[in-house]
Amino acid sequence: MTANRKFEEITLSSESVFKGRIISLQVDQVQLPNGGTASREIIRHPGAVAVIPLLEDRMIVVEQYRKPLEKSQVEIPAGKLDPGEEPLQAALRELEEETGYRSEHVKHVSSFYTSPGFADEIIHLYVAEQLVKGEARPDEDEFLECEAITLEQAQQYIREGRISDAKTILAVYAWQLYKLTGQI
Amino acid sequence: MTANRKFEEITLSSESVFKGRIISLQVDQVQLPNGGTASREIIRHPGAVAVIPLLEDRMIVVEQYRKPLEKSQVEIPAGKLDPGEEPLQAALRELEEETGYRSEHVKHVSSFYTSPGFADEIIHLYVAEQLVKGEARPDEDEFLECEAITLEQAQQYIREGRISDAKTILAVYAWQLYKLTGQI
Repeated sequence: MTANRKFEEITLSSESVFKGRIISLQVDQVQLPNGGTASREIIRHPGAVAVIPLLEDRMIVVEQYRKPLEKSQVEIPAGKLDPGEEPLQAALRELEEETGYRSEHVKHVSSFYTSPGFADEIIHLYVAEQLVKGEARPDEDEFLECEAITLEQAQQYIREGRISDAKTILAVYAWQLYKLTGQI
Repeated sequence: MTANRKFEEITLSSESVFKGRIISLQVDQVQLPNGGTASREIIRHPGAVAVIPLLEDRMIVVEQYRKPLEKSQVEIPAGKLDPGEEPLQAALRELEEETGYRSEHVKHVSSFYTSPGFADEIIHLYVAEQLVKGEARPDEDEFLECEAITLEQAQQYIREGRISDAKTILAVYAWQLYKLTGQI
């Protein structure tokens, strides 16, 4: 589909402020549809994948510390795309690295931007079924713990704030809809 | 609930890189659970609200240009918290500013972090029912167009990529679950 450019903001100038290991930051001056100008603070991100790993009536989740929040959170397995990596391959890699599980039954659920107001990060979400157990191999600066939880536990974790990120809440809703409708 | 600090990363130093109109960026050096060190690129954001506005069997959505994506997107009404503003008040304000609708029947659905790996942005999501029509008053640098869509249209928009942000896909799933189970 051609990108819809209604209300397009035309770039007048763009200043690179920061290039980091994971994200970069630029500030663009733009021309608004009414001819006025505004500045836009924009984060560039390489993109990521996430997986809903279903093991019978349970979902595999990982608990890890999230420095921006200064707390540990329970999330579905996820990670950044390596340069040039296909999202499906990245999803299978992250699933195995973080949980030890492999799957040959993986389906794309949806792809979504996490914060379209200030960032271009996109997450490609998959569901993985018929999991086969292998060995987890987290990255060297990654510390996490896996758990297999029921839908009721996932809903309880959301109420308690142990699950509180958009992709995982979205995944729990998708899983509930899958159970109710057979479709994902 | 006390924040869970399993696998805590202790801040060794923190450098402020950028303070913008909306976001700021810092780079922290942290001590990992195994004693090693790593750097963490962290975006600070004031937090935001979003609303699922239900008008009989339709949801009100807004189309606007998202500069980080260089395209126009259909999303639920949303916006940043003003300093000191209560999320519920912000939700009612954004709903009226962007769509012209008011509601006295608003319920909290969930609050979620959009990108916990690199940002502390949180979105407080509400559902608003029994909408009363007033007049839209967008911000001066905000250009948008409202539409009332059915669930089937929302699902079609997701397939077409016209809806492709996490909060709106999450909202469509929540709406579908609400229709199926009566609970939100």
